[in-house]
Amino acid sequence: MKLDKFSRTNVRISPNATIGSNVKIGDNTIIYDNVKIGDNTIICNDCVIGEPLNAYYSDKENYENPVTIIGANSLIRSHSIIYADNILGDGLQTGHRVTIREGSVIGNNCSIGTLCDIQGKTVWGNYVRLHSNVHICQGTKIGSYCWIFPYTVFTNDPTPPSEKCIAPTVGDYSVVATHSLLLPGVVIGSHCLIGAHTMVSKNVEDYSVVVGSPGKIVKNVREVIDRETGSPHYPWPTRFSRGMPWEGDDWENWQGD
Amino acid sequence: MKLDKFSRTNVRISPNATIGSNVKIGDNTIIYDNVKIGDNTIICNDCVIGEPLNAYYSDKENYENPVTIIGANSLIRSHSIIYADNILGDGLQTGHRVTIREGSVIGNNCSIGTLCDIQGKTVWGNYVRLHSNVHICQGTKIGSYCWIFPYTVFTNDPTPPSEKCIAPTVGDYSVVATHSLLLPGVVIGSHCLIGAHTMVSKNVEDYSVVVGSPGKIVKNVREVIDRETGSPHYPWPTRFSRGMPWEGDDWENWQGD
Amino acid sequence: MKLDKFSRTNVRISPNATIGSNVKIGDNTIIYDNVKIGDNTIICNDCVIGEPLNAYYSDKENYENPVTIIGANSLIRSHSIIYADNILGDGLQTGHRVTIREGSVIGNNCSIGTLCDIQGKTVWGNYVRLHSNVHICQGTKIGSYCWIFPYTVFTNDPTPPSEKCIAPTVGDYSVVATHSLLLPGVVIGSHCLIGAHTMVSKNVEDYSVVVGSPGKIVKNVREVIDRETGSPHYPWPTRFSRGMPWEGDDWENWQGD
Repeated sequence: MKLDKFSRTNVRISPNATIGSNVKIGDNTIIYDNVKIGDNTIICNDCVIGEPLNAYYSDKENYENPVTIIGANSLIRSHSIIYADNILGDGLQTGHRVTIREGSVIGNNCSIGTLCDIQGKTVWGNYVRLHSNVHICQGTKIGSYCWIFPYTVFTNDPTPPSEKCIAPTVGDYSVVATHSLLLPGVVIGSHCLIGAHTMVSKNVEDYSVVVGSPGKIVKNVREVIDRETGSPHYPWPTRFSRGMPWEGDDWENWQGD
Repeated sequence: MKLDKFSRTNVRISPNATIGSNVKIGDNTIIYDNVKIGDNTIICNDCVIGEPLNAYYSDKENYENPVTIIGANSLIRSHSIIYADNILGDGLQTGHRVTIREGSVIGNNCSIGTLCDIQGKTVWGNYVRLHSNVHICQGTKIGSYCWIFPYTVFTNDPTPPSEKCIAPTVGDYSVVATHSLLLPGVVIGSHCLIGAHTMVSKNVEDYSVVVGSPGKIVKNVREVIDRETGSPHYPWPTRFSRGMPWEGDDWENWQGD
Repeated sequence: MKLDKFSRTNVRISPNATIGSNVKIGDNTIIYDNVKIGDNTIICNDCVIGEPLNAYYSDKENYENPVTIIGANSLIRSHSIIYADNILGDGLQTGHRVTIREGSVIGNNCSIGTLCDIQGKTVWGNYVRLHSNVHICQGTKIGSYCWIFPYTVFTNDPTPPSEKCIAPTVGDYSVVATHSLLLPGVVIGSHCLIGAHTMVSKNVEDYSVVVGSPGKIVKNVREVIDRETGSPHYPWPTRFSRGMPWEGDDWENWQGD
């Protein structure tokens, strides 16, 4: 490009940050103390990485920013804010204006869409895909290969306001469609499909399809059939592989490897 | 103002951008290669215009930023991100923190509210109004004089995740109220009213009022009556003209012109 | 911290702004004319304070920015935009990327979460808590000690689009749970609990629990019982005090003070 995207204009980097090789950092981005960024990662413009925790404001003199790790081969798009005290795996991709509060451990090859708000203290497996504008509450546990679609909200307070924090859990390969709501503490099994506009208020067994508000189990995911081919749509890894570790292979073979 | 809003502090503009006459560009804004901005347009502070596409990250050496056009007499409010490869008409107004991904063709005199997320490859008519925080999926078609209210989401994947992309279509003069959801591929006719909190799962004929989840047609829009005056509220252009081309005239006369 | 969070890099402050003692202002922040910031307040990086109103764009020569007041001991987190012509009380805390349009009067000790969008001309009491991504429409009235949870939207146009603006009112101590929608003009009493995913379409008496779409009153809040202790959860101030003026005291005693 004629206008260099990474010209280091108005970039500020702590002398205590550790920047891997071949890392690019965009204009107007700030990298705070004790951030470690893996090789080949790109942090775009106007980002804040290692945002100091609230304790900084109450005792600046003694505040020490916790370690923040962003893995290798990641792409953090512009205007994102990642707090200190996160461990983010390799190959993370974010959209724009993502917020990740402190205390999460996120696996490898995850993606987090534009405007997502991750409230902190969450634990994720690998290959999780969050589309735009998803709100993940504090304490959430998400397995691997999960898909969460826009405007879905995870909640953790059963009697708001309270001091309780009972977050949802989502099992491997489950899909939560757009505009859904997970009530506090619900446990969704593996390979589930939560339909659009659904409010999940009870635990959900593996391979369930849930729709409605409050949500009800209406069928087994294997019963969702493609009208044209007559073959089942789910479990989805049997027919979708883009960006997944079984890409170019067959999911069942890959599992057997 | 004593503090100049357009002092050109920390502005970066590609030598390959084409800037019309009387254009203003706010602080900390970046304009990438091959952006063309029409006369009298204002781009506020902290915007990114002509954001390079993902292909840039995979092959920087050969990447050429596609042409991006922002029409004349537009106002792009602060912190907005407009990707390359968009054609945006004259008189566009955006709120803050709008994101417009690549490949859309947007008509004249549209407005896009704060936090809206336009996913790309969409086609719009003229005088479309999006209020805050609307999510428009890839491939959407919107007619002219449409109104879309906050937290409405358009979706395009009938069996997520999949490689299918079957986006909704909205006809001229239709209104989609707050917190609604359009399922993949639905076609909404002209002059429809989609009520708040509605999930549209089937095609909708012209002049229909749809409410509920899943949405049902409950009446003709002409049957929505003002209790005080006894006259119908819809079609809305008969009683509302602010900012519309029939302002100061009568809509039916104007149509006849 | 080794990297100073408040190094005054790329900060622009109007000569007509009034900055209290011990105020900190983060990088890339702009403070426009006639802003008054109280003592000990922290404005973080990349904020816009006193954003000029739309009238600025139509007549720059004669435009005078209205007075904007941010109280003492406040913390405005990064990337927030606060328009001119607001009066914000002491002890305000915001998340990131908050937008506050013009014309609001907000009491003391309120908090406004990440991505909230306050549309202007609203009136709030004290100790109001908005979690992330709440949309408050123009003209809303909120009492004191209210809690509003994520992705809740307040609306004010009964027949969109129209020139009518009939905003909701929420009484003291009421709680509106996640993903709810308040239709135009609804009046919610005091000590109510609006459940998650609820659409409030009618006025709600004091102490009501409302759920569903459209919402129905299903019980009195005093009937929401903790299964473990057998004691009532509501009114919530009897069991929750963090950050409230009765913290360390008993709510009923405190009221009697």
